[in-house]
Amino acid sequence: MKIGVVGLGRMGSQIARRVLGAGHELIVFNRTPDKGAPLREAGAAIATSLRDACAGRDVVITMLADDPALQAVAYAPDGLVASLPAGAIHMAMGTHGVPAIRALTKAHAQAGQTLVACPVLGRPDVAAAGQLFIIAAGPADALERCRPLLEAIGKHVFHAGMEPMGATAVKITNNFVLGCAIMAMGEAFSLVRKFGVDASLMHDVLSNGLLAAPAYKVYGRIISEERWDEVGYVARLGLKDANLALEAAEAVSVPLPSVNAYRDRLLGAIAHGDGDRDWAVMAREQARAAGL
Amino acid sequence: MKIGVVGLGRMGSQIARRVLGAGHELIVFNRTPDKGAPLREAGAAIATSLRDACAGRDVVITMLADDPALQAVAYAPDGLVASLPAGAIHMAMGTHGVPAIRALTKAHAQAGQTLVACPVLGRPDVAAAGQLFIIAAGPADALERCRPLLEAIGKHVFHAGMEPMGATAVKITNNFVLGCAIMAMGEAFSLVRKFGVDASLMHDVLSNGLLAAPAYKVYGRIISEERWDEVGYVARLGLKDANLALEAAEAVSVPLPSVNAYRDRLLGAIAHGDGDRDWAVMAREQARAAGL
Amino acid sequence: MKIGVVGLGRMGSQIARRVLGAGHELIVFNRTPDKGAPLREAGAAIATSLRDACAGRDVVITMLADDPALQAVAYAPDGLVASLPAGAIHMAMGTHGVPAIRALTKAHAQAGQTLVACPVLGRPDVAAAGQLFIIAAGPADALERCRPLLEAIGKHVFHAGMEPMGATAVKITNNFVLGCAIMAMGEAFSLVRKFGVDASLMHDVLSNGLLAAPAYKVYGRIISEERWDEVGYVARLGLKDANLALEAAEAVSVPLPSVNAYRDRLLGAIAHGDGDRDWAVMAREQARAAGL
Amino acid sequence: MKIGVVGLGRMGSQIARRVLGAGHELIVFNRTPDKGAPLREAGAAIATSLRDACAGRDVVITMLADDPALQAVAYAPDGLVASLPAGAIHMAMGTHGVPAIRALTKAHAQAGQTLVACPVLGRPDVAAAGQLFIIAAGPADALERCRPLLEAIGKHVFHAGMEPMGATAVKITNNFVLGCAIMAMGEAFSLVRKFGVDASLMHDVLSNGLLAAPAYKVYGRIISEERWDEVGYVARLGLKDANLALEAAEAVSVPLPSVNAYRDRLLGAIAHGDGDRDWAVMAREQARAAGL
Repeated sequence: MKIGVVGLGRMGSQIARRVLGAGHELIVFNRTPDKGAPLREAGAAIATSLRDACAGRDVVITMLADDPALQAVAYAPDGLVASLPAGAIHMAMGTHGVPAIRALTKAHAQAGQTLVACPVLGRPDVAAAGQLFIIAAGPADALERCRPLLEAIGKHVFHAGMEPMGATAVKITNNFVLGCAIMAMGEAFSLVRKFGVDASLMHDVLSNGLLAAPAYKVYGRIISEERWDEVGYVARLGLKDANLALEAAEAVSVPLPSVNAYRDRLLGAIAHGDGDRDWAVMAREQARAAGL
Repeated sequence: MKIGVVGLGRMGSQIARRVLGAGHELIVFNRTPDKGAPLREAGAAIATSLRDACAGRDVVITMLADDPALQAVAYAPDGLVASLPAGAIHMAMGTHGVPAIRALTKAHAQAGQTLVACPVLGRPDVAAAGQLFIIAAGPADALERCRPLLEAIGKHVFHAGMEPMGATAVKITNNFVLGCAIMAMGEAFSLVRKFGVDASLMHDVLSNGLLAAPAYKVYGRIISEERWDEVGYVARLGLKDANLALEAAEAVSVPLPSVNAYRDRLLGAIAHGDGDRDWAVMAREQARAAGL
Repeated sequence: MKIGVVGLGRMGSQIARRVLGAGHELIVFNRTPDKGAPLREAGAAIATSLRDACAGRDVVITMLADDPALQAVAYAPDGLVASLPAGAIHMAMGTHGVPAIRALTKAHAQAGQTLVACPVLGRPDVAAAGQLFIIAAGPADALERCRPLLEAIGKHVFHAGMEPMGATAVKITNNFVLGCAIMAMGEAFSLVRKFGVDASLMHDVLSNGLLAAPAYKVYGRIISEERWDEVGYVARLGLKDANLALEAAEAVSVPLPSVNAYRDRLLGAIAHGDGDRDWAVMAREQARAAGL
Repeated sequence: MKIGVVGLGRMGSQIARRVLGAGHELIVFNRTPDKGAPLREAGAAIATSLRDACAGRDVVITMLADDPALQAVAYAPDGLVASLPAGAIHMAMGTHGVPAIRALTKAHAQAGQTLVACPVLGRPDVAAAGQLFIIAAGPADALERCRPLLEAIGKHVFHAGMEPMGATAVKITNNFVLGCAIMAMGEAFSLVRKFGVDASLMHDVLSNGLLAAPAYKVYGRIISEERWDEVGYVARLGLKDANLALEAAEAVSVPLPSVNAYRDRLLGAIAHGDGDRDWAVMAREQARAAGL
């Protein structure tokens, strides 16, 4: 297929490589063009404008950091909505908000194009190995047409229905359930420490029982060893994700009290100067609230 | 050693069997005496009073349902505090509250006895196989003397320090972290369902990623399939555990906002008639609050 | 009528004086007997035991600090349940918990006596002037018999039904609504201060609009001027009241999320050493959580 | 002075009348022009474009419903930023968000103009009588120049500093403190009703004590009499205000747990179909959560 990839950050570059490796004809575009150089060597064409990246494509993939970045490339005068051929598909693989995806679904439909939302679970090294989990939602025939790409990019595809924003909601939800787990550990460790028990012991107990999952192992270690500066995911992005969750939930009138609880700790952490540390600082803020 | 076991419910009976199997001389006591019959056949003596169960024992183990039950056997005129020999050890293996354990630690000390708190993780079948995790806290020499028993009963012992209430706090904390995980899934499923996504899909996503732990698998299935009547742990006990957490946290001045969040849903669930269903009904109540 | 008053603290003494002033025959009792001296001069008899204070009385009034104090005088071997004549009334005027009042209602009924719960709103100087508000609940005929006393003691009586615990619930609720107002001001002031606006300006705005009530005036001044050491009501008692609210709410399965919110700040305030300051320190803790 | 007023809704029209009554030369503009007719009869000129409304004005007042409406008139090609003379003042009297006011402050400054934020407390009838409270913030000299207008429009001006967003924050905060009071009553009434006590009795108790303020009287009556359809302020706007509060608080890293609590109830109320009823339905939703 004729594919475009817009957004060549650490994730987007790996996704472009997977597409190329599966034998598709690829053109790539990035706001700062030097990001494309390694892909050119690997066989991709370099677009000098969004219009170039869209012209004659079957599918254009975007992998962008947030809603403003997505809206900028989608709604620019030569952006995806203006430049994609009728019948083409926009695969939006970033983590976006429900209102943004809902509006874009409509805009593409009015232009005779189709939006497929397919956010992913996994980091760049996982992407490089083609081992991402992909959550995909959109019209059935569009998903079917995207299948070769999805299979080239990910290990497994979860189908989240016909509405693109369904995939968005699932991805946002996955993030907030993780945030709740981190917060719960923060409450746990602050409590046992006040009884003179090491956080690391509590961590061992949690990691060996019903909660033996990577999240509890990884974040439990960060919290118990206070490794706030080994940033896997920064607190400010954790707050952004919590906001995406509350925004999505408001769109369908769902209260999320546990998200409120950890979002409040993130705000406190930022107020105390921890905004650029790992988002596990919500646990540090919980400890502060307990006088530790 | 000369051992007594008080409380022959489903857990206590299995613990008594493990003690017997390790070659200790055992006497057992239960408020309703017929519970002891199978153990008599296995070689245990049957005490007809608490005084009998305590007389001349090195260690008496209690495995009781709650604080009032513990206080009843501890403070009765012929109870453990009155009847245990000086120098003997009381191993309290039930899940109790911090104030109850703190008071009992003091009472035993005044009587020249020692309290070791050693609550467990695991159900009766796990206990039968000697595969429990035990969280033990108490004076170092007392723990050392208990070691043969702890090894006979459990697979692994977590040492939670010299203060018995430390072990109590760890056990209570383990329970509330689990409650938080169930609540987070409740929020998750209510949100995606409103976007037309099956709860079972969200469950799959959660169970395959960073949160791949038995708790998410087991409770996610209960919630997504709405199996509220397959009661593993009843809502009213979940509420009792949340109260133990808040009580322990108040003793050391720690706010627990995530526990408040799920406790409120348990109260709502009870108000709506779900008090005797599985405590995963907190997720059902969350769905109700979202108009589902 | 023949009246007894048990508990001669600052409130109880004033209530006793009002009873005496209305021409009733009065006997008083206090754990520490010297508290009764001024009342003896005013014409009251001094009881040397609870039995004396109950013997032959139509009504015995208790005004005690908490549930344990009430339970001690009610259930002592010579306490009110044991010593009040059949047909007599126990007017419990302190602020007590719902479970404590429920149990005592039953105990008095079994002894052929009647419990009337009648907690009050107002401080000792208000009591001295006979200007208390009284919230009264109990059987209609008992309330009718108490009317001369209630009118002697208070300015107005709110009738909260036939069940004594109804009056208890109203009083506890009044306290927690006040706590919520203080907490809201704490959130308000912490927010505007971060925008460079004086808390006192926000206080003025609140006090001049829809929220022009004594509570906002008084507590707003304490918070904006940071007068934490001018203790009207101490933080630890504020926490006790929040616990009474949660306990009452649990008895009837009602979640109270706003009470959780301010209770968490009280816990944090206590953790930071403010437990013996005015309960408005919940606002100071809110400011801390905002990095102020 | 030469004054423009943009936005002739129920509040804006009254404000325009007050300006006219104080003898200023007035031109008015509304998106739907017929709203201006009564003011023309009273002596105002009618602008046919935003450019007309701004040309040669000393001050242009906007009174608009929300941020998008404000941004539309401010940033339109012929809007206030483009059309106000250098040195002119924009008095923004609507209730807006902190980020919107912050951005507009900057935009006006770059165009050599000055933004004064001056949101008001009071309804149209209060505005007609010149009895509004005004919260004003902006550079001192600009506020001084606005004084004749502010005095013509309101009864009292609260000065919230030099930064326009300070006034915004105060107004938003005033609204959320009110929301917290309504929520607290919701929790109060749901609790006492479960004890068989009438909500109206609880309302009487609250209204006669430390919380004797119009808000408790007015909203307490709405809730206790379940007058959800006598809409003073609609639930969806209450939710919008809560969002403004959380947005403002996020800008300065302040957690607002009590706002979260009532916002969650508003979401639940909307989920249950009460979005167009009075925002006191947060109390109805609280009752639902308690199984009432």
